Amino acid sequence: MTTLYLEDLQPGRVFVSPTHTLDVEQIKTFARQFDPQPFHTDETAAKDTFFGGLAASGWHTAAITMKLLTATEPGIAGGLIGAGGEISWPQPTRPGDVLQVTSEILEVKPSRSKPDRGSVIMRSETRNQRSEVLQILTSRLIVPRRPIQVA
Amino acid sequence: MTTLYLEDLQPGRVFVSPTHTLDVEQIKTFARQFDPQPFHTDETAAKDTFFGGLAASGWHTAAITMKLLTATEPGIAGGLIGAGGEISWPQPTRPGDVLQVTSEILEVKPSRSKPDRGSVIMRSETRNQRSEVLQILTSRLIVPRRPIQVA
Repeated sequence: MTTLYLEDLQPGRVFVSPTHTLDVEQIKTFARQFDPQPFHTDETAAKDTFFGGLAASGWHTAAITMKLLTATEPGIAGGLIGAGGEISWPQPTRPGDVLQVTSEILEVKPSRSKPDRGSVIMRSETRNQRSEVLQILTSRLIVPRRPIQVA
Repeated sequence: MTTLYLEDLQPGRVFVSPTHTLDVEQIKTFARQFDPQPFHTDETAAKDTFFGGLAASGWHTAAITMKLLTATEPGIAGGLIGAGGEISWPQPTRPGDVLQVTSEILEVKPSRSKPDRGSVIMRSETRNQRSEVLQILTSRLIVPRRPIQVA
């Protein structure tokens, strides 16, 4: 499997992930453990809330996005290591949604202090089967430079 | 249980969560499902990576932070509904870490278009038992205003 180094990444390069189908059980299981609020755990109680029906926790959408990013090829050398970023959920993720992540490299910057690495800004949009944007994640990744070949 | 409305929140107000103790099994279980990279799933393989040992997925730290926020009292009326925010992981979360979240309200703003709600900016620091900051989350929450009492 090919893996990419900092030198292989250019702004504008796009990666498309596989898909993940979300159902009621997955939504409730994640929510019971990490975000036990009625709009994430109970269809009936969810009706009278802000969401008007069962919705996945935003952190569940984020976790599935990460899963899809790790399954996207080609991968990045050393793995996907995020230092942080900005996240937003323009609309709720619902049972039956089929999630897919499209990522675009926005910026590639060698480190000034550490010659073996650099940082990459990547924008990842998580959409459902109707192309509705469920999450926008702009993340800063730590990416190794290609090791120097000693002659 | 008291719940807070937009009118009850002021910049500077601080909330402290309960704690959550993380172990190797939790780290691996989350990672196998959502972030199956060697530094999150395998102690031995993790040694030769950027992390130098097993570390929790950042999204696992985020999910536990959410769990701790939902368990923080007093709660917010209508629940904790995040529209998005900024997240960073200044250092890895490790097995044995005891996580606790301290949140501070930074800004409270009634909505211009929707008289029944407003938005709140909250900064949540997730620290371990040595007070090392593992995650900083600055989130924008949607918070209802106190319903008007009809005379």
